[in-house]
Amino acid sequence: MALLYKADPARGLQWARLFAEKAPDLPFHIWPDHGDPAAIRYLVAWQPPEDPTRTFPNLEVVFSVGAGVDQFDLSGVPEHVPVVRMIEPGLVEGMVEYVTQAALTLHRDLFDYGLQQQQQVWRELPLTPAAQRRIGVLGLGVLGTAVLERLRLFGFACAGWSRSPREIEGVDCYAGEASLDAFLARTDILVCLLPLTPATRGLLDARLFAKLPRGASLIQTGRGAHLNQQDLLAALESGQLQNAILDVTDPEPLPAGHPLWTHPRVRITPHIASATRPETAVEVVLDNLRRHREGLPMLGQVDRTRGY
Amino acid sequence: MALLYKADPARGLQWARLFAEKAPDLPFHIWPDHGDPAAIRYLVAWQPPEDPTRTFPNLEVVFSVGAGVDQFDLSGVPEHVPVVRMIEPGLVEGMVEYVTQAALTLHRDLFDYGLQQQQQVWRELPLTPAAQRRIGVLGLGVLGTAVLERLRLFGFACAGWSRSPREIEGVDCYAGEASLDAFLARTDILVCLLPLTPATRGLLDARLFAKLPRGASLIQTGRGAHLNQQDLLAALESGQLQNAILDVTDPEPLPAGHPLWTHPRVRITPHIASATRPETAVEVVLDNLRRHREGLPMLGQVDRTRGY
Repeated sequence: MALLYKADPARGLQWARLFAEKAPDLPFHIWPDHGDPAAIRYLVAWQPPEDPTRTFPNLEVVFSVGAGVDQFDLSGVPEHVPVVRMIEPGLVEGMVEYVTQAALTLHRDLFDYGLQQQQQVWRELPLTPAAQRRIGVLGLGVLGTAVLERLRLFGFACAGWSRSPREIEGVDCYAGEASLDAFLARTDILVCLLPLTPATRGLLDARLFAKLPRGASLIQTGRGAHLNQQDLLAALESGQLQNAILDVTDPEPLPAGHPLWTHPRVRITPHIASATRPETAVEVVLDNLRRHREGLPMLGQVDRTRGY
Repeated sequence: MALLYKADPARGLQWARLFAEKAPDLPFHIWPDHGDPAAIRYLVAWQPPEDPTRTFPNLEVVFSVGAGVDQFDLSGVPEHVPVVRMIEPGLVEGMVEYVTQAALTLHRDLFDYGLQQQQQVWRELPLTPAAQRRIGVLGLGVLGTAVLERLRLFGFACAGWSRSPREIEGVDCYAGEASLDAFLARTDILVCLLPLTPATRGLLDARLFAKLPRGASLIQTGRGAHLNQQDLLAALESGQLQNAILDVTDPEPLPAGHPLWTHPRVRITPHIASATRPETAVEVVLDNLRRHREGLPMLGQVDRTRGY
């Protein structure tokens, strides 16, 4: 019985050290050195190998090292092998930090102040109280919920939208297709934290931007393929959108010379909003392995019909 | 009995409207139209006129529209006239927003990511967990305390320093001259929220920077004259300091052509971290007028010997 890790090799060494300490009886391999293929029961991967159960016939669970599994070819993983997304405190903390920073950057007009600094202009801009700043989060999973719980402490007018109904204290929760337009119409700062599925691919497009109030801004912390980048550039050009903070693009890395790199109202970061932290992630995987052995549902287990 | 307002005239009109609504019996004048000088009992000012009791012989209280009174010539205000600083929720909210945004900007390496964006470079930098990021706030008044209470929710290692001992839950509080070096030695992100007094003028200088860990950063939200700007430029040059976020400068506005405007590791905003909000400030002044009439101490009343 062994575990195979197939993701960033530098982080893999940290995982190996933590497993050696916390689960010394479970052999830990780092791809491509997988040892006896028949011994591999657990796979921890950013992208699983093609047709994994052909190579590893006794595979029991596939863990994603990321919060999403959109980078997985789920059709290649047989139905009897559960797939588990990463839900761990380090990943949540990083996302809360990133989105809070981004929301405050937009709320306090720091794009405009940055442009003024370039021109050496000292000029105060009108201040909007937080209670009049309407933030809306698309996607109310663990990350979206944690982000809203932090943002509402600043007194922002907070709302969230999800496919199925949710309740979060102090947050106006909208659910389902039919309520999406109403949610967008009341949102000055839109945060995308949706999973990437066929239903959400390309959702952030001209049609959606047109439903936001004129001059709204976007924080894109979902997946690059949620966003139509040409439509974003057009919306910034027309003034329908004012600013965009993008942590994910399509493709990644964003190619040199892409117009998003140099747009004065676009901030690009290289998919760093939130990273799985080995110290805490290993705890979560070990806990899920215990649950799996005891026949309990695992934290973050993917519903194959929904795709997340 | 009348009140005279002597500060930004546009905000003065908002104050006038609020006073007309909430205290219709108290005549409200906007400088320089002060009406009968003998009727002026209360002065609300950014800078009081020189020798105010000569012009307004029946002056009873001087209110600052700002959180500090360092811009006042206190020697010109007789001892029997109390001076009151502005402590109001809008001012606190603005400061908490600004410093949180600034601290997260530094914590999440957004200066470096901004420089990478300029070079169209997509490269992940190592992530430091919040628990290993040591933030230290100089000044534990209403603003410093509120800022620390928000920052500690992010899991930062939080400390504060003040002249006299304070206690804030979850924050290591240092007090007095003798503990300043120890406070600085453990601080990666230094926030200045001190009052400006003869003892704190020029405090942020080469000697102080040298006591911070190499590569520390500064958030300057105190007063411009706390900071030796040449020493800051030298510390950034040598790498002793990594980044600086300045909301206040000396002089203000910062003159065009000043090297701080164009330094790639300096962010300048035009003294906008926090602004007195007329809606809430008027409530606080009215409450203080009630207290004054009843012989109670006013909220924010300045200790003339300390200067704040």
